[in-house]
Amino acid sequence: MSKIKVGIVGGTGYTGVELLRLLISHPQVTIEAITSRSQAGTAVADLFPNLRGHIDLNFSQPDADILAQCDVLFFATPNGTAMQLAPALLAAGVKIIDLAADFRLKDPQVWQHWYGIEHSCPNLLAQAVYGLPEINRAHIKKAQLVANPGCYPTAVLVGFIPLLEQGWITQPQQLIADAKSGVTGAGRKAAVHTLLGEASENFKAYAVNGHRHLPEIKQGLNWVSNSAVDLTFVPHLTPMIRGIHATLYAQTDHSAKEIHALFVQRYQNEPFIDVLPANVNAETRSVRGSNVCRLTVHKPQNASVLVICAVIDNLVKGAAGQAVQNMNILFDLEETSGLQHLALLP
Amino acid sequence: MSKIKVGIVGGTGYTGVELLRLLISHPQVTIEAITSRSQAGTAVADLFPNLRGHIDLNFSQPDADILAQCDVLFFATPNGTAMQLAPALLAAGVKIIDLAADFRLKDPQVWQHWYGIEHSCPNLLAQAVYGLPEINRAHIKKAQLVANPGCYPTAVLVGFIPLLEQGWITQPQQLIADAKSGVTGAGRKAAVHTLLGEASENFKAYAVNGHRHLPEIKQGLNWVSNSAVDLTFVPHLTPMIRGIHATLYAQTDHSAKEIHALFVQRYQNEPFIDVLPANVNAETRSVRGSNVCRLTVHKPQNASVLVICAVIDNLVKGAAGQAVQNMNILFDLEETSGLQHLALLP
Amino acid sequence: MSKIKVGIVGGTGYTGVELLRLLISHPQVTIEAITSRSQAGTAVADLFPNLRGHIDLNFSQPDADILAQCDVLFFATPNGTAMQLAPALLAAGVKIIDLAADFRLKDPQVWQHWYGIEHSCPNLLAQAVYGLPEINRAHIKKAQLVANPGCYPTAVLVGFIPLLEQGWITQPQQLIADAKSGVTGAGRKAAVHTLLGEASENFKAYAVNGHRHLPEIKQGLNWVSNSAVDLTFVPHLTPMIRGIHATLYAQTDHSAKEIHALFVQRYQNEPFIDVLPANVNAETRSVRGSNVCRLTVHKPQNASVLVICAVIDNLVKGAAGQAVQNMNILFDLEETSGLQHLALLP
Amino acid sequence: MSKIKVGIVGGTGYTGVELLRLLISHPQVTIEAITSRSQAGTAVADLFPNLRGHIDLNFSQPDADILAQCDVLFFATPNGTAMQLAPALLAAGVKIIDLAADFRLKDPQVWQHWYGIEHSCPNLLAQAVYGLPEINRAHIKKAQLVANPGCYPTAVLVGFIPLLEQGWITQPQQLIADAKSGVTGAGRKAAVHTLLGEASENFKAYAVNGHRHLPEIKQGLNWVSNSAVDLTFVPHLTPMIRGIHATLYAQTDHSAKEIHALFVQRYQNEPFIDVLPANVNAETRSVRGSNVCRLTVHKPQNASVLVICAVIDNLVKGAAGQAVQNMNILFDLEETSGLQHLALLP
Repeated sequence: MSKIKVGIVGGTGYTGVELLRLLISHPQVTIEAITSRSQAGTAVADLFPNLRGHIDLNFSQPDADILAQCDVLFFATPNGTAMQLAPALLAAGVKIIDLAADFRLKDPQVWQHWYGIEHSCPNLLAQAVYGLPEINRAHIKKAQLVANPGCYPTAVLVGFIPLLEQGWITQPQQLIADAKSGVTGAGRKAAVHTLLGEASENFKAYAVNGHRHLPEIKQGLNWVSNSAVDLTFVPHLTPMIRGIHATLYAQTDHSAKEIHALFVQRYQNEPFIDVLPANVNAETRSVRGSNVCRLTVHKPQNASVLVICAVIDNLVKGAAGQAVQNMNILFDLEETSGLQHLALLP
Repeated sequence: MSKIKVGIVGGTGYTGVELLRLLISHPQVTIEAITSRSQAGTAVADLFPNLRGHIDLNFSQPDADILAQCDVLFFATPNGTAMQLAPALLAAGVKIIDLAADFRLKDPQVWQHWYGIEHSCPNLLAQAVYGLPEINRAHIKKAQLVANPGCYPTAVLVGFIPLLEQGWITQPQQLIADAKSGVTGAGRKAAVHTLLGEASENFKAYAVNGHRHLPEIKQGLNWVSNSAVDLTFVPHLTPMIRGIHATLYAQTDHSAKEIHALFVQRYQNEPFIDVLPANVNAETRSVRGSNVCRLTVHKPQNASVLVICAVIDNLVKGAAGQAVQNMNILFDLEETSGLQHLALLP
Repeated sequence: MSKIKVGIVGGTGYTGVELLRLLISHPQVTIEAITSRSQAGTAVADLFPNLRGHIDLNFSQPDADILAQCDVLFFATPNGTAMQLAPALLAAGVKIIDLAADFRLKDPQVWQHWYGIEHSCPNLLAQAVYGLPEINRAHIKKAQLVANPGCYPTAVLVGFIPLLEQGWITQPQQLIADAKSGVTGAGRKAAVHTLLGEASENFKAYAVNGHRHLPEIKQGLNWVSNSAVDLTFVPHLTPMIRGIHATLYAQTDHSAKEIHALFVQRYQNEPFIDVLPANVNAETRSVRGSNVCRLTVHKPQNASVLVICAVIDNLVKGAAGQAVQNMNILFDLEETSGLQHLALLP
Repeated sequence: MSKIKVGIVGGTGYTGVELLRLLISHPQVTIEAITSRSQAGTAVADLFPNLRGHIDLNFSQPDADILAQCDVLFFATPNGTAMQLAPALLAAGVKIIDLAADFRLKDPQVWQHWYGIEHSCPNLLAQAVYGLPEINRAHIKKAQLVANPGCYPTAVLVGFIPLLEQGWITQPQQLIADAKSGVTGAGRKAAVHTLLGEASENFKAYAVNGHRHLPEIKQGLNWVSNSAVDLTFVPHLTPMIRGIHATLYAQTDHSAKEIHALFVQRYQNEPFIDVLPANVNAETRSVRGSNVCRLTVHKPQNASVLVICAVIDNLVKGAAGQAVQNMNILFDLEETSGLQHLALLP
């Protein structure tokens, strides 16, 4: 079988280098092009020295003709870029996996409200498939345009979905997601607040009154639920490079044991979801560099409040790894192909 | 006025060295003795090189006669030690501030349940005063035995108390405290799980099913509330040295503005509580090394869920600083005496 | 005695906030103005929340008339700014302590070579006094313009000077200074390479072929030496917020014991230099937040190579603390006034 | 071809888990046994959650009969253990790769001096092959007992060897190696000095007067040199999990360009040595999780002092990765088999 020709649009950020790390060692892929307006001409391995000896490409100016020759394009661009380029490329028959937010929200008004720009191709929103394989695998298989989920939404949705599917939450409008992210979630761009001197030895909540991932999470929760769902979502910045830990709170009448069994059963065939035994805590380092999401189920003090913990690597299952997983599904490859990296611990 | 003679029992841990840092620069105090069975004979400045040139004491074996000559003793010992020594020392007229948990819980059965040992002087529990000045200043003034609060309880109680005093929480049995602590909360003892190789670049919840600070928090919440209060308390370990960030969730019918005004008014005369303006986030580094607790009030998306964030330095307002604050109150000193250190940022 | 009126020019960086931390608690000082073109109008405590409740000033536009009313001005500006403003202010009788490099090098050609701009007031270079009290106290006392040393030069000079003064180094043209700095040495400006995501969990040398502090170090070494001195200086970036550790190598015929005795004697009256006993290692955390430099002396394996380790907090003895020390000397205050903060450990 | 049966003796430390990470994904290997006296019976994946789903083994008591059925054994035990078990296992025909120090030093007296115990099988020292492939590949191929090098020696030897082979260092008795290690170099054992609360935000030298890796480095340097070599070796602890950065100093008459060319030529066929271009700095993160050593060559200010920087991951090229590389050589596999992991950056 000939290899899949992939291109990466906007490859100088953290999701770009992580896509490269995964795709370079993917057995069924060749990387045809990686674009960057600011770094065009620079050898990729000069910017990312971990890749020295494993990639010969230079960053190039985005060229529609060259990109159109790829089988699939990963957009690792800032929000609002993919929607400018996607229509022509889709028309040319290329498959697109967008790691930004451009195609995640179904309602263009909601998109405009949260992202501050009018959507340039709202007609594509219905066609775009939300790329969370654990709820959407069948649609992804047939998609041409995949909206790769945000990092927080991935962790929160995987943690709540089995419960909402079953209607086991008694107050589905009072869900709480207290989420903590490593600093790479803010991207690889010059900024003061993510300097080591600012973000190390520090912990804070941010965007408490409304984070862009909130509408995406709500949309996903409502898809799988029979009754209206609402949640309070509080993201926090934690002083580490990688990792998201979502601590989820909900009311339920079911026991911890029942819920644990439900999670085990719901995710038994999922290659990247690992439900931990009772009394084990989920640690972000257990998934560092891997595409796995690990989950725990607790009902502290046998009260009515359920506590679910979900950990992912924000750059892998929360971004580049999930994008490769979606590519594997799109092209009928083994879903774990190129994604069997073990987490780096310690 | 002659200086207050203080002793520290068990001074080789993190609360010990922090007490020393604060007491050395306290203008109305002389440090008479600091005990440690394991380090007896060692110069204090050899163990804690930051104190070189500022303290001449050696660690000494605990000697009841010498300790009895102090005006006040700080117990920075493991749980279960202070209760062995306190009765005789109290009888000798010494004041005691216990930084461990021995005298925090009023019910000896509850103590035994959570700490696994029978309480050796349950009769002292009624007499002991819980040393959270913001709710108990008048009793502390007259106390001989002060139970210095735990680090998590300090942050959680300061955040919930104004609301419970007013009865402004509609479901006071469904409070949630999602708390994050730096690693020094686990103390300065040889252990694997707090090695830098294990705890750095990692985030996890722990003791989800029941942490020893849970009954202490519940006790404190119920003191100030007219109706029964219950909470879910989930502590997390975050990869930093110092700091606690408590994110508190409750249901309320009151607006963010009303609640912010309530907090400002409730804490207006408190020297160590700082209610931040709306739209500012509380950062643990803003209190690093200082005795301040900073608070924020949010009602995300104008829903019914209230979010309070409270940050403290676990070793200062969460331990040694609060103990010195209690000493100041006990001896009618200016409450801020020796505690005006500005936080070290960055 | 009336308080000294101080102004800070350019106060939004790390040396600015550190000057504020030290000056706010300095008993003989009032802060009259703090300027920032970019933040003019912003409350200082809004930018630096650790200062809330301790300072009421707003950042202001730099106004020569207002600045001229101060007794002393600290310039915490980028290199090249102080030299523009200094002549007029000096003419108005104000004393100036420049924390940037503008007045550190005596030779304007060398300055231009390393800093890339022509010096605008080379005539002031002779008058400027290099503000390392341990070698220059007598001149500082009488100075109007003090060039506060760089962070690396402070650590390296304090470590080599006693040896060069005595002529105890056999190959003074082959000195080596292998220095490691925390990330705040790079300042508080938006940049990619000092993001937590880039600089944490990473160690690297930089500017190996020539760092701007090299000519400053050489100049200082040659002042105290009878024979020509040269050194190889390799700075490294280490993943922490504060601290410099300089490991110094030289050839000597003297024993470790003799050299240790020399250091003890040379620095016996220095309030901020602490020579550690043999077999103790100098740790950067032992000086975090304090103005102390700690030193160790080793001759490994009794060979001819001497190893000196020197640790400072780059923002205190390496910048703001040394500047306040210089101010104390300039105004005949107790040299330790406002500088007795104990290091924050842990 | 049937797979190689490997066993790991003493697998609960950091080199143990890293061996597992590498061997699990090695295509020509099956892991037959992993022993631990303290954890016998525990599932490996319970101790190391990153391995969940990838290994079914439990830790077992070390059983000579079972171990003797392996083709090769990795000893990841404390110093002094392998020498007890090796003679019988070697007699049974098993190949051994010892990651501890037991067989690294040729002289049993030197071993006893530095490790404090008499060597129990000095007769094996001549037979043992020092497992640094870059100097010893031919001998490793034919070995039955491989002494896997220490982490510091690997970085230092790779950096100095090309120069010593050519006799290009003018004062080979005055070499300096200033080395910096992440904290996992101290192993995964309960200890105070490597707690996050002690080791984070801190930098210090240690063992300045003599580290156990010193005789190993000297032995290796002398092997390749025509004239006697001596060095000063100063290790430092840097606040990160993984990584060693060795900064090497030597006198030479050759130019930076000549030396760079020498390094490129010397290592051109080495799959795991990467000589960086001039003006690029070696970063430890560029090798995190990979078996690569990256090198830079500098002659600052065109003086006579040469500066070589070498970075490795202490747990990979400095331990487990090099051990697997040695296994590949021992069994005539592709040398890079199972070792093509790209470094995790960020």
